[in-house]
Amino acid sequence: MSAVLAVDIGGTTFAAATVRADRSIAARAEVPLGADPSATLANLIDRFDPHGLIGVGIGSAGPLDAAAGTVSPVNIGAWRNYPLTSVVGELTGLPVGLAGDAQCMALGEYWHGAAAPSMLGVVVSTGIGGGLVLDGEPYFGRSGNAGHIGHISIDPAGPLCRCGATGCVETIASGPSMTAFARSHGWTGPDAKALSAAASAGHPVARLAFARGAAALATAIRTTAALVDIDTVVVGGGVAAAGEVLFGPLRRALAEQAGLGFLRHVTVTPTTLDRDAGLYGAAALAFALAGVPV
Amino acid sequence: MSAVLAVDIGGTTFAAATVRADRSIAARAEVPLGADPSATLANLIDRFDPHGLIGVGIGSAGPLDAAAGTVSPVNIGAWRNYPLTSVVGELTGLPVGLAGDAQCMALGEYWHGAAAPSMLGVVVSTGIGGGLVLDGEPYFGRSGNAGHIGHISIDPAGPLCRCGATGCVETIASGPSMTAFARSHGWTGPDAKALSAAASAGHPVARLAFARGAAALATAIRTTAALVDIDTVVVGGGVAAAGEVLFGPLRRALAEQAGLGFLRHVTVTPTTLDRDAGLYGAAALAFALAGVPV
Repeated sequence: MSAVLAVDIGGTTFAAATVRADRSIAARAEVPLGADPSATLANLIDRFDPHGLIGVGIGSAGPLDAAAGTVSPVNIGAWRNYPLTSVVGELTGLPVGLAGDAQCMALGEYWHGAAAPSMLGVVVSTGIGGGLVLDGEPYFGRSGNAGHIGHISIDPAGPLCRCGATGCVETIASGPSMTAFARSHGWTGPDAKALSAAASAGHPVARLAFARGAAALATAIRTTAALVDIDTVVVGGGVAAAGEVLFGPLRRALAEQAGLGFLRHVTVTPTTLDRDAGLYGAAALAFALAGVPV
Repeated sequence: MSAVLAVDIGGTTFAAATVRADRSIAARAEVPLGADPSATLANLIDRFDPHGLIGVGIGSAGPLDAAAGTVSPVNIGAWRNYPLTSVVGELTGLPVGLAGDAQCMALGEYWHGAAAPSMLGVVVSTGIGGGLVLDGEPYFGRSGNAGHIGHISIDPAGPLCRCGATGCVETIASGPSMTAFARSHGWTGPDAKALSAAASAGHPVARLAFARGAAALATAIRTTAALVDIDTVVVGGGVAAAGEVLFGPLRRALAEQAGLGFLRHVTVTPTTLDRDAGLYGAAALAFALAGVPV
């Protein structure tokens, strides 16, 4: 059975796996990001034998330029317009497909059978990313950047985002944004993981921070549903692991904001694949590139 | 050469035309909406000879249920879940395709060669509608409702929209919304057309009303570009006919809000086809239904 190499380029670790066309994982590895990200990449790829593989799919933290095959991940300062596709092509001798990490997460959820033919995948973590599958196909867009749900502005008078616009969802609902909000209101914990534990334990400011983030996410999800008419949303990422403190207010806010009839059937569920969603999506990308139906 | 019947169901008039595969219009008619909209429809259809036509395409004011072939236009109270597709099918004996009016406008602009392979069409009028063409194909979505740009919420704490949500673009940028804003700030004119004339003549409140609407539209356009990665936007509809008092602040707001790099190349132009865009789009729909490449 044909198999591909799936690679996930994250801001703190790089992961990879060989994935077969029946969606089984044959081998996997994960390497913490070192001072030289290119060395980390070579170290990771070196653990796999390209012999017998038909291609490589990469899901990478963005921004990226899919046509040029380059990436400039916000959290990997050493890589700016880094030619990831050609580097991995030289390391493996295989054709390489590249997409955003959240796009691969959405595609992986779709490929793994979790979802409807059209869906939105959202990754809530240090930033907020998204990916779309429309009518059974990943939708990457003209420049490969479709699905940027974290940079929907839900409050033009809101805080300045690192992207340069104001009031982006990411300024309210990302892990660091919720943590900063809670700390500015007297909570003293260190990070989003602690904030999640505090919210679960009933801390009112922590709960408010999650409710506020969830309401912003709900607006962005509703907006996406109004524009591309999807009703299936899968949410993953480190912050989404907080569970009910995020999903409870998220579902309530969606129900309250729905409006038009076709927006009343939007369902939001947590990913069941954890980080593997991105690897499955990268694998699906590689199979598609090789023309192998899976 | 094959030809189809294109029908445009609006809130005040119904229009139709026979359109040939070379995008020429052979005959056209327009009927003001009477007390009995079904009689208006029959009157309109009766002016065309279905002999020799290969199909019908309809662009209708929404909401609509494309799968069921029914429409419930906000401004046509007598039609609720009205079986428009089957009625027109019986009147003509032809296969009938149905889409939203703004979806047809976008498809018509695309078909007529004005635009890039992926684009957003926006109709700014009594309400605000939108339609998407993605990778050279009209994108209608799961339930046929894709492109609802008027119901993107850009301010969850904003005014209640008739759809039931809050802060929708339509509550700020539609003709009646801009007129209501201006009147609540001392302007005394009757409607959006007068408001447009006043803004062109330099009336400060009228200009502010348009600038406010334009900023809301800019946020919605930027959001759409972030999600589906398009860079071509065509705007039509009665209010868009105001011209520079709308497009000037719209382009300025887009430039100010852009943020991410791939959002900096969004161009917004007025329709060059006026209401014919919707008829061309309905015709393209009918040709697609008949399997005729155009």
